[in-house]
Amino acid sequence: MRNLCLTIAYDGTDFHGWQRQPHAPTIQDCIEQALARILGERVIVTGSGRTDAGVHAAGQVANLKTACRIPTENLQRALNSKLPKSVRILKVQEMPFTFNARYDARSKTYRYRLLLAPVCPPPLVRFVHHYPWPLNLGRMTKAAALLVGAHDFTSFIAADARQAENREKVSQKRSSRPVRTVLSSRITWRPGTSLLVYEIRGDGFLHHMVRNIVGTLIEVGRGKIEPKQILTILAARDRSLAGPTAPACGLCLVKVEY
Amino acid sequence: MRNLCLTIAYDGTDFHGWQRQPHAPTIQDCIEQALARILGERVIVTGSGRTDAGVHAAGQVANLKTACRIPTENLQRALNSKLPKSVRILKVQEMPFTFNARYDARSKTYRYRLLLAPVCPPPLVRFVHHYPWPLNLGRMTKAAALLVGAHDFTSFIAADARQAENREKVSQKRSSRPVRTVLSSRITWRPGTSLLVYEIRGDGFLHHMVRNIVGTLIEVGRGKIEPKQILTILAARDRSLAGPTAPACGLCLVKVEY
Repeated sequence: MRNLCLTIAYDGTDFHGWQRQPHAPTIQDCIEQALARILGERVIVTGSGRTDAGVHAAGQVANLKTACRIPTENLQRALNSKLPKSVRILKVQEMPFTFNARYDARSKTYRYRLLLAPVCPPPLVRFVHHYPWPLNLGRMTKAAALLVGAHDFTSFIAADARQAENREKVSQKRSSRPVRTVLSSRITWRPGTSLLVYEIRGDGFLHHMVRNIVGTLIEVGRGKIEPKQILTILAARDRSLAGPTAPACGLCLVKVEY
Repeated sequence: MRNLCLTIAYDGTDFHGWQRQPHAPTIQDCIEQALARILGERVIVTGSGRTDAGVHAAGQVANLKTACRIPTENLQRALNSKLPKSVRILKVQEMPFTFNARYDARSKTYRYRLLLAPVCPPPLVRFVHHYPWPLNLGRMTKAAALLVGAHDFTSFIAADARQAENREKVSQKRSSRPVRTVLSSRITWRPGTSLLVYEIRGDGFLHHMVRNIVGTLIEVGRGKIEPKQILTILAARDRSLAGPTAPACGLCLVKVEY
């Protein structure tokens, strides 16, 4: 048996997220169906984690076990010929048999893009959150930096997902507290583009965590929340204090490190 | 009565081109429907020219006549709120009553993008022609330059469109010969992006002319046609000598000058 690792990019707009679902198209489904057609056997693909409906990836990682002997480059080409163009296999690599794309992930990097221009050009519509109102970047930069470090992110978890998250963590034999370590958290602004980019790297992310952080940073940029309040919001462990969930379309899973 | 000029960007992927059609969504249709909802009257929009199904625009221009008194900026906002996100009004301007977006156009600029990388990233899928085979840029650059000047472009007109084109030109009181002047024709290559960009500016373009030129430049890049043969192909006035029609998705109407 071989253990193969896939690096995957996708436009999540037309999918109901990564994870297989009975009656809706998902990226995992798509890839498993393409593999079944190529390998002639039902194969399960393990992703580094789920992404929500509408969220994109430039470097999602998944692994699968198979007895097939197709060379990695040929398998990549075969998969890309069967998959819709919105899902692309960037790389296929042989891995040691014990490698698990989910449990071995050491860090993930997400990027969120806000377009601050009055009109959103059609080529960007699917890949940015169009926010045509003024934002104070200095305030947002300060607030973003305060997230670095190990924190309890209860205030930034999807309200309806808290129970599910706890279940998931127990099965992962992690602490049942929603503590995650953020390694970097940065706002960048490319002059001339109207594009505000937020990038966050951490050892793991809870459901809706990045989108809730972005929603809160927008409130900071609008002057509704003070930058320093980020610490109070973290400490309160209360979802109602943070900002709203930013739309999925601005979010992209950029990289998973092992 | 006012004469209003619209500058329009669109993702042409899901449209059957610019021009109104009875049973298929077109961009002209979309804009006329949005105007009817805002103005409460049926208004006809005159585009600078048609674009084919799947072709994009970053600066299509159109004009319309109306007695409405809505200020231009408010009309722009109202239109963008009614239009699908794949069609955006970039500007609304008051024009002299005699201005006609079609007959007054002095030049147009089209851009064609080829992605030469082995895998096409999902965000580019709708906006480039993915061509993962080697092309000789030096040869293509030479051939592209030979198109500058006034030429009979019969060899580059859609075979089934020649009759229609001739009809169109007669009504424009132009010469009935398919002569057009190309003002610039250039290949550029942005290192590190795998993106080959062809830009052509001219006083007018015949049906499929840019896509047939690109298809021919690809044949030159592949070594199937010699760069100098461009002149022979022009002189022959024979569609069968030029290359195939390049796919619509790579093409974008960038600018119309008056």
